[in-house]
Amino acid sequence: MSDLQIISVALGNRSYDIEVGAENLEHIGSFLTTFQPISTAVILTDENVIQHGYAHRVAESIAETGIDVHLLSIAAGEQSKTIETATTLWETLLEEGIDRKSVLISVGGGVVGDLGGFIAATYARGIRFFQVPTTLLAQVDSSVGGKVGIDLPKAKNMVGAFLQPLGVLIDTKTLQTLPENQYRSGLGEVVKYGVSLDAKLFQFLEANIEKINIRHVEILKQIIADCCRIKAQIVAEDEFETAGRRVLLNYGHTFAHAFEIQSHFTLLHGLAVSIGSICAARLAVRAGLVNEIFLKRQIRLHQALGLPTEMPDGVDRKQTIELMRHDKKTEFGKLRFILPTDIGSCRLVDDVDLRLLECEL
Amino acid sequence: MSDLQIISVALGNRSYDIEVGAENLEHIGSFLTTFQPISTAVILTDENVIQHGYAHRVAESIAETGIDVHLLSIAAGEQSKTIETATTLWETLLEEGIDRKSVLISVGGGVVGDLGGFIAATYARGIRFFQVPTTLLAQVDSSVGGKVGIDLPKAKNMVGAFLQPLGVLIDTKTLQTLPENQYRSGLGEVVKYGVSLDAKLFQFLEANIEKINIRHVEILKQIIADCCRIKAQIVAEDEFETAGRRVLLNYGHTFAHAFEIQSHFTLLHGLAVSIGSICAARLAVRAGLVNEIFLKRQIRLHQALGLPTEMPDGVDRKQTIELMRHDKKTEFGKLRFILPTDIGSCRLVDDVDLRLLECEL
Repeated sequence: MSDLQIISVALGNRSYDIEVGAENLEHIGSFLTTFQPISTAVILTDENVIQHGYAHRVAESIAETGIDVHLLSIAAGEQSKTIETATTLWETLLEEGIDRKSVLISVGGGVVGDLGGFIAATYARGIRFFQVPTTLLAQVDSSVGGKVGIDLPKAKNMVGAFLQPLGVLIDTKTLQTLPENQYRSGLGEVVKYGVSLDAKLFQFLEANIEKINIRHVEILKQIIADCCRIKAQIVAEDEFETAGRRVLLNYGHTFAHAFEIQSHFTLLHGLAVSIGSICAARLAVRAGLVNEIFLKRQIRLHQALGLPTEMPDGVDRKQTIELMRHDKKTEFGKLRFILPTDIGSCRLVDDVDLRLLECEL
Repeated sequence: MSDLQIISVALGNRSYDIEVGAENLEHIGSFLTTFQPISTAVILTDENVIQHGYAHRVAESIAETGIDVHLLSIAAGEQSKTIETATTLWETLLEEGIDRKSVLISVGGGVVGDLGGFIAATYARGIRFFQVPTTLLAQVDSSVGGKVGIDLPKAKNMVGAFLQPLGVLIDTKTLQTLPENQYRSGLGEVVKYGVSLDAKLFQFLEANIEKINIRHVEILKQIIADCCRIKAQIVAEDEFETAGRRVLLNYGHTFAHAFEIQSHFTLLHGLAVSIGSICAARLAVRAGLVNEIFLKRQIRLHQALGLPTEMPDGVDRKQTIELMRHDKKTEFGKLRFILPTDIGSCRLVDDVDLRLLECEL
């Protein structure tokens, strides 16, 4: 095992660690034992993760410490993030006698993480939770920050909670088996951190295009640790999204959400963010916040990493504007955007001139 | 309006007030305005509470302050505390455009309070919550302490959260319309506080039997405020039931829960607690923790307040013991009881000799 990077997430009087490594999956058992007593470890995973052997490796590593392990698997994909699946899981935990001294461990992507966290937040009024994200999107974004939840038929992530895990273990080796479009989707969020929040990360990405494209485990370890560090810092300042800091993580997301809805969620989240952040950059150019050089540099990085920059097929400009007006993050009906002001910095703009949106997005 | 009693519930760096009064229901509007900005007040209530006019009086008082009010009503009774009702409510809130600046206000008994709190804890990852309990059981117990949740078909309160409200408003005048058996059920919990946690309250109850039986609003104000104060103190010491203090609120509850299951929940909770606490007292006598005089004094108070003291019909001793072994509060399979050591004091006993249970419960 190579060196590990440990990121501490500080939240008031609590804190927890994110461990980022390459080939460190088997470290889960000893990581967990620091939280004894644990009566049972319930692993929640999906069929894809099972197929690649990751869930069983996690299970074996935990079993070796003497902790009782239960393995639960759901169908892969967003269609599992429902009240129906949650109900089945609550009833299964009850039948299997899972008590408050148990830990639920999500091993998988964002769906498994969000759903598992919601189950942990609500079963028996809350049991402990641990994350082992195995997709790039989950490693740099959804596993950090404590947002957990399920979808309603008409709104994603509409039912949920804030639940910080005991810890997060990230093994970049698991990314080797990730389908290409899911890997690119994760990169969409990675680039977002660089453009809107961290100029050094942006430069590091520019300098390592080839290694990123071949999924070099050590380079990915560095990048993922940086993303986690950036997000952890912001979450520490604004755990419950009430202080106006956490919203800065949403560069490109107002557009992205509207694109996802129009694609009926066939467009992957990080790819929508990729396009959305180019739209936001164009808007920022028109608003005089950044110049054309900024925009071209961002587009160049997106293209080098195989990320989309143009509005997807089937997306209508008028409908996009209409959907953005109804986003969960709108307040009192106002359209709000995170717009860049330079490489690595951005701000919330809630008085965008609507005429600037009438042009090409 | 007569004098109000204000109990402050201190939780770490947060605190909130419980206001106890007689005929103070119309005070809700001004109570709420201290928490501005509020975009919408969603009142959750049930058909019985609607019928007595309480929900509309709350709605009018809030509307007078200029806050937009939505009124949602569910069928009365435990059968509403389900995933199905929760799903309908989540979808209704979404359709009505309820956002994170809204407040959900439960006006009713334990079901409305527990369900409303669970919806508030989970809709859009949490919106603010306020309680207006209108049954005695909810006023002295379920509205205080932050436990919210719904039932699974096979286990009550199995899905839920800890959510402290913005505040609690209690109007003892609402108890005038409470059905007799529900009033007695609430008294079952009131007596529990006296016997197991507060000798002064026990004596006050003994000295005011007649006024309690005619539901004297001022005497009830005093008693309810005392119960809230006792519970608030314990909750402040152990908000998440992890420090071994909160369990002391469960005098009589290990037995009560087993009785409720055997009655298929036709036996009201507080009446089950009444019988359960006599069973626990008998067990304590046999264990040598209290003497016969203690037991007789407790039985006398129960009888004077019309509370049951004998095992209900249809309850089997062997099944009771078996059910107690599977209680949610058991840990690593051990039988645990809260047993009295004197009037107003009790302790957790987790090594009860099983042979003491073989005798008459």
